[in-house]
Amino acid sequence: MSDFEKYTIDIAAHPMLERAKELGFLTTFDRAKAQEPRCNFGNTGICCRICIQGPCRILPKKPGANKGICGAADYTIVARNTVRLIAGGAAAHSDHGRHIAETLLHVAEGKLKDYRVTDVDKLMTVAQKIGVATEGRDVNAIARDVAQAALDEFGRVSEYPKLTWITNTVTEGRLKKFNETTIMPSGINLSLAGLLHQTHVGNDADPINLIFTGLKAALCDYDGMHLATDLSDILFGTGVPVVTEANLGSIKADKVNIALHGHNPLLSQMVVAAAKEMQAEAKAAGAAGINLVGICCTGNEVLMREGVAIATNFATQELAILTGAMDAMVVDVQCIMPSLRSLAECFHTKIVTTMPIMKIPGSYHYAFDEYNALDSAKNIIRLAINAYKERDASRVSIPQIKHTVVAGFSLESLMSIFKNINPDNPIRVITDAIKAGEIKGVALFAGCNNLKGQHDNNHTEIAKGLARNDVFLVATGCAAQAFAKEGLLNGEGVAKYAGEGLKKFIGRLNEKSGLTADLPLIFHMGSCVDNSRSNDFQTMIANEMGVDVSDIPYVATAPEAMSEKSVAIGSYHVAMGTPTHVGVIPPLTGSSLVHEVVTKIAEDVFGGFFIFEADPHKAVNRLVEVLEERTWKLAMRAKAAQALAEQQ
Amino acid sequence: MSDFEKYTIDIAAHPMLERAKELGFLTTFDRAKAQEPRCNFGNTGICCRICIQGPCRILPKKPGANKGICGAADYTIVARNTVRLIAGGAAAHSDHGRHIAETLLHVAEGKLKDYRVTDVDKLMTVAQKIGVATEGRDVNAIARDVAQAALDEFGRVSEYPKLTWITNTVTEGRLKKFNETTIMPSGINLSLAGLLHQTHVGNDADPINLIFTGLKAALCDYDGMHLATDLSDILFGTGVPVVTEANLGSIKADKVNIALHGHNPLLSQMVVAAAKEMQAEAKAAGAAGINLVGICCTGNEVLMREGVAIATNFATQELAILTGAMDAMVVDVQCIMPSLRSLAECFHTKIVTTMPIMKIPGSYHYAFDEYNALDSAKNIIRLAINAYKERDASRVSIPQIKHTVVAGFSLESLMSIFKNINPDNPIRVITDAIKAGEIKGVALFAGCNNLKGQHDNNHTEIAKGLARNDVFLVATGCAAQAFAKEGLLNGEGVAKYAGEGLKKFIGRLNEKSGLTADLPLIFHMGSCVDNSRSNDFQTMIANEMGVDVSDIPYVATAPEAMSEKSVAIGSYHVAMGTPTHVGVIPPLTGSSLVHEVVTKIAEDVFGGFFIFEADPHKAVNRLVEVLEERTWKLAMRAKAAQALAEQQ
Repeated sequence: MSDFEKYTIDIAAHPMLERAKELGFLTTFDRAKAQEPRCNFGNTGICCRICIQGPCRILPKKPGANKGICGAADYTIVARNTVRLIAGGAAAHSDHGRHIAETLLHVAEGKLKDYRVTDVDKLMTVAQKIGVATEGRDVNAIARDVAQAALDEFGRVSEYPKLTWITNTVTEGRLKKFNETTIMPSGINLSLAGLLHQTHVGNDADPINLIFTGLKAALCDYDGMHLATDLSDILFGTGVPVVTEANLGSIKADKVNIALHGHNPLLSQMVVAAAKEMQAEAKAAGAAGINLVGICCTGNEVLMREGVAIATNFATQELAILTGAMDAMVVDVQCIMPSLRSLAECFHTKIVTTMPIMKIPGSYHYAFDEYNALDSAKNIIRLAINAYKERDASRVSIPQIKHTVVAGFSLESLMSIFKNINPDNPIRVITDAIKAGEIKGVALFAGCNNLKGQHDNNHTEIAKGLARNDVFLVATGCAAQAFAKEGLLNGEGVAKYAGEGLKKFIGRLNEKSGLTADLPLIFHMGSCVDNSRSNDFQTMIANEMGVDVSDIPYVATAPEAMSEKSVAIGSYHVAMGTPTHVGVIPPLTGSSLVHEVVTKIAEDVFGGFFIFEADPHKAVNRLVEVLEERTWKLAMRAKAAQALAEQQ
Repeated sequence: MSDFEKYTIDIAAHPMLERAKELGFLTTFDRAKAQEPRCNFGNTGICCRICIQGPCRILPKKPGANKGICGAADYTIVARNTVRLIAGGAAAHSDHGRHIAETLLHVAEGKLKDYRVTDVDKLMTVAQKIGVATEGRDVNAIARDVAQAALDEFGRVSEYPKLTWITNTVTEGRLKKFNETTIMPSGINLSLAGLLHQTHVGNDADPINLIFTGLKAALCDYDGMHLATDLSDILFGTGVPVVTEANLGSIKADKVNIALHGHNPLLSQMVVAAAKEMQAEAKAAGAAGINLVGICCTGNEVLMREGVAIATNFATQELAILTGAMDAMVVDVQCIMPSLRSLAECFHTKIVTTMPIMKIPGSYHYAFDEYNALDSAKNIIRLAINAYKERDASRVSIPQIKHTVVAGFSLESLMSIFKNINPDNPIRVITDAIKAGEIKGVALFAGCNNLKGQHDNNHTEIAKGLARNDVFLVATGCAAQAFAKEGLLNGEGVAKYAGEGLKKFIGRLNEKSGLTADLPLIFHMGSCVDNSRSNDFQTMIANEMGVDVSDIPYVATAPEAMSEKSVAIGSYHVAMGTPTHVGVIPPLTGSSLVHEVVTKIAEDVFGGFFIFEADPHKAVNRLVEVLEERTWKLAMRAKAAQALAEQQ
């Protein structure tokens, strides 16, 4: 196996990595290799830098160094470090949500000419869900109240009321659990600032107390994500099934190529709109038109709503530039490699940063102006068109690899397919299939790429393994993009990898889907901020089955967790009662206590727990085991109930 | 020199360290030694753990490892790590302020029987300062509005209005500067959550942008601190000069000893009140009474307002237990060593945690109940009295070393002394002395202990050096406690260490102070959250001189900075235009760019800048140089103005 093959299973990446080598450019794969072996203190969570007396590195057997200078034990240090990761993730997700909420408020106030409430039905659903009056009211008035309710989640400093989105979206059982365990937050920013305080030097030393605060922050992550999804749908529409394509082959040699990269749809939606208007300008410059492609979750956002193709995911973002055909890469926030800029220097590519909190020295900063959003977008496209003119055609080399992608599975669009089978109670389509043993349950794939393993391999191996075991699969984020590139988001994926039960189940959906394309092996639910779609799915299933979410055969996996966001997502899933697999060993093995708590004791409290397993095949076995156990318990419970009924 | 002498200059500490050795207990000094040599990556700021692909350690000369896996350069990593330290500090200070504000609100609403508005004058002053109407209004109504205004600082999610306390306490010039440089915050928690987002993986790579966001968070620190001080004064009274004592000798062999440790006065004030009522109970147990002593900033709070003696400061907190005479150590939040608990096991001492965000496994948790605050305090004192009964007198060994302390110098109490000399314009007492060259300016001593150096040595050496150079000295936090223990907070300190000018200046104050005790060499202004008292002093001086704070001879020094709070304090001082010395090299030398920005370029923008100098004598020279330069510039400016006036 060549080095490149060891790096990634994405075959389109290999020639690009070869090219990087020729150019003498070290990619993220090379940089990951150069960091080997990782520092064991940091890698296991027992390096503390919370004050500036240290760093303190815990050496269990060295007298005096078995604790930090302040006396903090391994479990304190690991717990503090871990919950600060959660805080970083929750801050990123929720601040994204706050930005969307602010925009919706400005739309409702009539301040923004280029945005509007696109999905009135979703607005009504959300308003009713959170208790905003709709009857006889103007759309903008409702939108204003919904946006204000969202902003209130961030501003609340009193202990009550608790967060609105959590309160109105989880099962009754969960709500009770969150309140009983005191992890139910009232204010997002309040909880995050409080967590920073709690983890300050000389504050909380109790790992359990710290972990509960971490879970509170993780619930803020959930809340911020959920409102981000809801409000994005209101502004830009809720995804419906689309057919498009994925992989570097979606970059076109004859077109002005613009990659939309980051996480926030506010600008990228405008770029999509502007591109439609500016095809002629591109043609005047000699191109066949404008070709938009997506990277990371901004890519997922515009895929879901606009059918924009997926170029690639996190770890291979640099490679899009190495095609030589990328004219501009427009980035907003999160998961954007600073290395893009120096690589762009080797080509004609313009890296365009757009948000005040994300700049890269040396790149082009086109400050996004929501008051003139379409103009902001047009200026960027113009830059790309001009860059196209400078493109050296002899240096263009696009790996001609791509796959058809059937995506756009918001929960609404999934339910509308289910409705074709069971118009009265669509969710029973899946609960019946679970009860019948046709499928073993549901698995959510979420999260990033992490080069501690082979890129995309954990994602695809685990997905194939679960599919073979008849698990219904949904996905978000970079996980979904890995599947797209591997050809798992289309009907062929079903044919190749689904077990008999799953094949039958998807087959039945296909018969009545009303779509021209076959349904995929894995249902792409959106960006990483859209994981709440899966949580709503979980909640619907649990409610239909008359149990709490912690009882249903529904698991989550982040096969290549990397960002703080993924730590937050994983943590709230555990609080939601979900067995949550992580395919990378996170930096907490330095404390056997914390490790035990999150992998075992958590189950006693929340029903959910972490499974850390880097081997994809072992992970599949464990996840299937967990699903089977839950299905078995449900069956036992049903039998007992029936027996009781018969006795009476 | 013995190891113990190398560890600390506090001679009372030496026999206690000897005792620890006999017991086989490794103190924080031993643990600090065991961490030598520090990891160079962490120590210079070039270890990144913001995502879980790493840790990434920057090796400038190793291809691929000269940047992080994502491509983050040393300057990005250092800037991100640094501003996250600021966020941690600002969160701690401001959350403390929020807690006080919440309590004041509940007092104003009549919900709390054990608290009241103690200082009505201060309430009126604060209300007027922040624009709350006072005319003909009930005290509680005013208090409610003031408390609400404080809480609004935490809850604001819109960009305007900007923070109230900053707006109404800094010079016009600073306000303009903060707005122009976009570092003026509107919401404290909003800014902190935003900073976490901005430093998430794949977000801001621009060190300058990051540093500005760091300064915004640092201003939140200032704001939260200022309102904490104001509202604490309103609730518990504004400090007036008190005479008390310091060092381990303040612990009494014949009394029930209770140490008040942490930062928040809400409980400790109640302990002081309860102790007055419970002397008889202590006597019934065979003790001569109850003796309260303070450690860290809770100690400073009750020193300022109640004259409670100072036992010791941060690094030597363990030693109070080693006297064998400490019956209970009551801790609230921040800077409490987790090691206290295991050490307490060697004695009869009870470690009592009281706040939900600060627990130590194995210690006694007496949840503080603000609705029954006095009862909470009484329960704790009862625990201490019971512990006293278990005390083994043969194991009591209190180093008989103590010094007289004259403290309690809130800005109000300092001004009332100045008023005795200049009733019409008290601040001119100091500005005249500066203009006359009698004193060279003012230096604030702030911050912690850091065992990268010899404990307390930097504090006292720099203070003595500046005093000899006729610098008027004010102090807060653990710095002030170092001075107290070294006998610098009394008149003898003046006699021993003040230069001729400073001696004359303090002499004149003494003549009209109206106090029975001589004024000290260094004026103790309170806890570390009280640094805003010094900032107000700065602002008054600048306004009187008709210049901005960045022009006056006023410096700050944190000779032994340790906590994230100290990083936040130092950073906002730089934004306030203050030359700010730090006696510990902070973890940012891994980026020459960031180092250059904060030590040099910052001056061009804000007038303030960092001076990193571990050698106390070099630090004195540099600080004196800076003061002289500013005084010289002021004189030149005055001359030029005079010449211009004469021409006209």
